[in-house]
Amino acid sequence: MERTITSEQVEPIAIGAGVLGTGGGGSTYLGALWLRETIKRLGSPRVIDADDLADDALAVSVGKMGAPTVSIEKLAQGDEMANAVRGLEAHLGRRMDALLIGEIGGSNALMPLICGLQLGLPIVDGDGMGRAFPELQMDTFSIAGLDHHPMALGDSHGNVIIFHKLDSTHRAEQYARVLTISMGGEAGLAMPVVMGAQVKQTLIHGTLTLAERIGRAVLNARRAGSDPAEVITAITHGRVLFRGKIVDVDRRMVQGFTRGRMRLAPFGGGAEMVIDFQNENLIAYRDGEIVATVPDLISLIGLEDGEPIGTESLRYGLRVAVLGMPAPKELKTLRALEVVGPAAFGYSEVLFTPMAGDLL
Amino acid sequence: MERTITSEQVEPIAIGAGVLGTGGGGSTYLGALWLRETIKRLGSPRVIDADDLADDALAVSVGKMGAPTVSIEKLAQGDEMANAVRGLEAHLGRRMDALLIGEIGGSNALMPLICGLQLGLPIVDGDGMGRAFPELQMDTFSIAGLDHHPMALGDSHGNVIIFHKLDSTHRAEQYARVLTISMGGEAGLAMPVVMGAQVKQTLIHGTLTLAERIGRAVLNARRAGSDPAEVITAITHGRVLFRGKIVDVDRRMVQGFTRGRMRLAPFGGGAEMVIDFQNENLIAYRDGEIVATVPDLISLIGLEDGEPIGTESLRYGLRVAVLGMPAPKELKTLRALEVVGPAAFGYSEVLFTPMAGDLL
Repeated sequence: MERTITSEQVEPIAIGAGVLGTGGGGSTYLGALWLRETIKRLGSPRVIDADDLADDALAVSVGKMGAPTVSIEKLAQGDEMANAVRGLEAHLGRRMDALLIGEIGGSNALMPLICGLQLGLPIVDGDGMGRAFPELQMDTFSIAGLDHHPMALGDSHGNVIIFHKLDSTHRAEQYARVLTISMGGEAGLAMPVVMGAQVKQTLIHGTLTLAERIGRAVLNARRAGSDPAEVITAITHGRVLFRGKIVDVDRRMVQGFTRGRMRLAPFGGGAEMVIDFQNENLIAYRDGEIVATVPDLISLIGLEDGEPIGTESLRYGLRVAVLGMPAPKELKTLRALEVVGPAAFGYSEVLFTPMAGDLL
Repeated sequence: MERTITSEQVEPIAIGAGVLGTGGGGSTYLGALWLRETIKRLGSPRVIDADDLADDALAVSVGKMGAPTVSIEKLAQGDEMANAVRGLEAHLGRRMDALLIGEIGGSNALMPLICGLQLGLPIVDGDGMGRAFPELQMDTFSIAGLDHHPMALGDSHGNVIIFHKLDSTHRAEQYARVLTISMGGEAGLAMPVVMGAQVKQTLIHGTLTLAERIGRAVLNARRAGSDPAEVITAITHGRVLFRGKIVDVDRRMVQGFTRGRMRLAPFGGGAEMVIDFQNENLIAYRDGEIVATVPDLISLIGLEDGEPIGTESLRYGLRVAVLGMPAPKELKTLRALEVVGPAAFGYSEVLFTPMAGDLL
């Protein structure tokens, strides 16, 4: 069913996307400002369900590639993603029928809505991650074995580069990453190109709606003075892993990623929590024991206001709740864990012990 | 007039291309081996003159992008350039009619002959540099203001990346360089795409024939026991700048380039010569005074055998002649000097004082 997104829906979607971003996906604050401004100029984005797409329709995911720490310092020119999509259309000799959300986590949930307005295309409710992931091959399209070429990168000067043939999704990530760094640390990305029939099979359906539900619950909790951590975990089938404050952040830019580790101390004493991240939060330890690992979601929110906290915004003294939320079932098959399990992030010794339930 | 290149012509072309390479363009030794092997398998490359091309014919330059020091260690898979050309054809929806030589200097003079056999396309006698240059925007196509997009890079795994839109030739160089480094330091390059009418106007005509003439003269000098430095400079309107041996080489890989400085001592004492290089030899100093600068050609050859010596092969004790040869007139206009004069290589204080005459 086609519906539109009004300016009033931007804030709850942005909050929910921030929670699903598990620390990454880019600042939703700037993304929300940009989306509201675009709605004011160009009207309301059209959203459709995956099942509304014709089997032979052509669609492509769009978003920003780069590190969260760059996203808050380097503002987009504005047409990077649209240029990338137009480049793919020129390359393929065919117009796109719809845009997809590559990752629902963080600012990248909002980018397709902006690009859809720029190009006059509807956006499908759903995404390829059900969260955010740092590398572009970490999605349900890769897990399903779909090609990542052709794909396109656009920079803030109008340059567009098309990946015509790619022998692996890791190659896509490797070459796109060095280009993104050379493009100033952030670029507009359009990939993969998929047919409607493939979208229905591989997309994690309804995650844009989920993001909005999470965000509305947080806003309601703020008004009612209730606990945002509890209302979020009720919707996402998760649990509160920790409450405390950040006492140490070791964060670097490494090969285009925001990498590091944070340490959190509980209020009133007790076991500390340590969280490793690569753009997104990957593994949470309590007292040296693993309590949650990727692909399950580990998100920090402000203790009182429920505002999601990205890895670019971590700082000493922040009072937070750490939420653990089960991954969508599409990310937990054996094939999926090869692509998005702990070993895919270099933790070859860590076994994935799924939290009970599914995100949605 | 169409003619073919036989196996017997490969050696003189390779020697002449090495001389015109001014230290860069890649080892002609390996390139010549590869070309002879390809001729054995696929027959003789067809060569045409620029004036044989129809005005609306489509042509593209092909060659290898990378550093000479990599070219002698990383052998090509073999289809990098052909894949790049096929990628451009798919992107444009049109077949190519001919291949161009991007740079006549070094191994890149031979690459289009190999690629032409692989693709069944003729090669135009001429090139865009009249020598070798380290950066891809340093050619007569850039000087004439032609677009460098679309262009394509192919790696040794069959991956092809197409540069669809580029706002400047410097951007083309920047993005292609980081990709080439990520591709292992060497890649197959196809660019720029030009129409026949543009080829006739911008190409430096007849440089493949010039390379062969230089090489034949060197081979004849070897047989006759005469001085190869004298026969080369007679053909190229140049002069012998120095005779002596290499006493010091400072050479590094920097951002994908072979950069450095060499010092040469004359036989029997006297003023030393110092030569700076970035893939190619850029500036020659004698006793601290500049005696030749880019775009004029500065080439090292073996003192007795006339074998050209690339910057990847410099070593202590080599006995050499240093040749200075005037650049083709196309590289000496004011517009050209912006692109290939000393300042384009960072020598903003150095004025270009052309040697007398023109290369051809």
